[in-house]
Amino acid sequence: MPGLIECVPNFSEGRRPEVVEEIVHAIGQIDGVTVLDHSLDPTHNRSVVTFAGSAEPVVRAATAAVGRALELIDMEQHTGAHPRIGAVDVIPFVPLGSTRLEECVDLARRFGEQVATRFDLPVYLYGAAALRPERRRLADVRRGQYEAIRDEIGAVPERAPDFGPARVHPRGGAIAVGARKPLIAFNMNLRTDDLAVAIKIATAIRESSGGMPAVQAMGVLLENPGMPPMAQVSTNLVDWERTGIATVVREVRRLARDAGTDIDHCELIGLAPTGALLEVAADTLGLMDFTPDQALELRLARDR
Amino acid sequence: MPGLIECVPNFSEGRRPEVVEEIVHAIGQIDGVTVLDHSLDPTHNRSVVTFAGSAEPVVRAATAAVGRALELIDMEQHTGAHPRIGAVDVIPFVPLGSTRLEECVDLARRFGEQVATRFDLPVYLYGAAALRPERRRLADVRRGQYEAIRDEIGAVPERAPDFGPARVHPRGGAIAVGARKPLIAFNMNLRTDDLAVAIKIATAIRESSGGMPAVQAMGVLLENPGMPPMAQVSTNLVDWERTGIATVVREVRRLARDAGTDIDHCELIGLAPTGALLEVAADTLGLMDFTPDQALELRLARDR
Repeated sequence: MPGLIECVPNFSEGRRPEVVEEIVHAIGQIDGVTVLDHSLDPTHNRSVVTFAGSAEPVVRAATAAVGRALELIDMEQHTGAHPRIGAVDVIPFVPLGSTRLEECVDLARRFGEQVATRFDLPVYLYGAAALRPERRRLADVRRGQYEAIRDEIGAVPERAPDFGPARVHPRGGAIAVGARKPLIAFNMNLRTDDLAVAIKIATAIRESSGGMPAVQAMGVLLENPGMPPMAQVSTNLVDWERTGIATVVREVRRLARDAGTDIDHCELIGLAPTGALLEVAADTLGLMDFTPDQALELRLARDR
Repeated sequence: MPGLIECVPNFSEGRRPEVVEEIVHAIGQIDGVTVLDHSLDPTHNRSVVTFAGSAEPVVRAATAAVGRALELIDMEQHTGAHPRIGAVDVIPFVPLGSTRLEECVDLARRFGEQVATRFDLPVYLYGAAALRPERRRLADVRRGQYEAIRDEIGAVPERAPDFGPARVHPRGGAIAVGARKPLIAFNMNLRTDDLAVAIKIATAIRESSGGMPAVQAMGVLLENPGMPPMAQVSTNLVDWERTGIATVVREVRRLARDAGTDIDHCELIGLAPTGALLEVAADTLGLMDFTPDQALELRLARDR
């Protein structure tokens, strides 16, 4: 799998499954692309599609998705709880396997320029692909959402897009295109219903409050019907090669035991890079000289 | 990777690297086949090649390997410490990914018949592909080695091959063709130089002395220059879906602690199915609802 890239576009449509199906279909019919997942969120009125392939098919599929979304979604009609700036709100490109982040940065910029021209759509580059440091954080690009960008894009210099016209697309608004490392959504459920313990641990481990690098965390209380409530430390690991699953679990376990409880079990949400899971196995076993190439199917996939 | 199959032929040549290179080359030039590994053992005068692909390319490559080995290796000239019956001593077919063992059984029988006809070579089916129960164990097929088979094949009814002539090939002898599950060579190094502890643990865990199913084990003393001697429990896990790495490590750790020591670290020799390593991660983390499909590159490899 040389040069494998994942693409995770977010669309401002989570209530009409038939619309999302049409977008997924437009992506899936591109040769060389595999659709890995798609999900709808009616509350946020938003959907997320995950697909992968090598650079050229991924760009073709992302372009097809933008085209279809502009036909099917009208931002002037859109409401929902999640911040968004356009019909295709955000398109991140993510390196898989041995692909480097820099390749995704180049791809995002190339794709951003193409899509701006083709659809007459303003494009903001964010994340590792940002051309301006103040656009690295997606939240900063999205400030004030669609409505603020619509009103300011032609009038406020800081709002000028990186590519495309200085006015929003009549139906599609604007689009944020970026590059980032793969993200692991990983939760640890504690043997306690004391939310304060989960919040305290999350605060201790997250980077933003001085914890471990590349870790985002929050404490939540799980309340599922028929189950006792359970405090959870919910994390996003945004660069597992800096801070991996095993390191986070070790630290959360230590803090939980200090608080008189422990981790009961863990949850991996969605997909994770195989290397991040193999690292847990290698760490647990104290494996000498282990490389992910020793995993048979992975090695084969790399060589084929 | 639909229908992926691994093939691990053993050749009676471990002293002439150029001969093994030629055989590897014959395998590698078949479209759709990936050579994963090859190694020479001069003491045993034997070499092992590991390659994989879907059924048809794997059969073509195995046939090419047999043809080349019959040209380059002469059993009448062969000596070495390892039991062997022919120039190509043994060819196991191994299911990878979602391939079932039964597919490899069918393939081994089909390949055995073809290769017997094409090269006028006696073929014995062993392992899961055996047609006679007394040929399931490779050691039973190999009894007395090349020299005994050469003398008995036409005279002793129990020695009649499953396919091919009732006389050995003038240069290549005979060949054992079989099917088996992937084998994991996995060692646990103890924090002691007491070989007796490793032997006691190995005896307790191995299936042949009443231990865990599908586990082969022995105790050895590692003596590497410049390192203190270290007792090792060396295992082959011949069906990791029955007894996996995590289960073996847990039991060996328990027994080691009972003996006043512990596992220092582990070693994985060569390749292992990715699923067997992911199982260790899932076990360690107590992952709820985990499936190997959550490993990104593995999921992609499956779908492509």
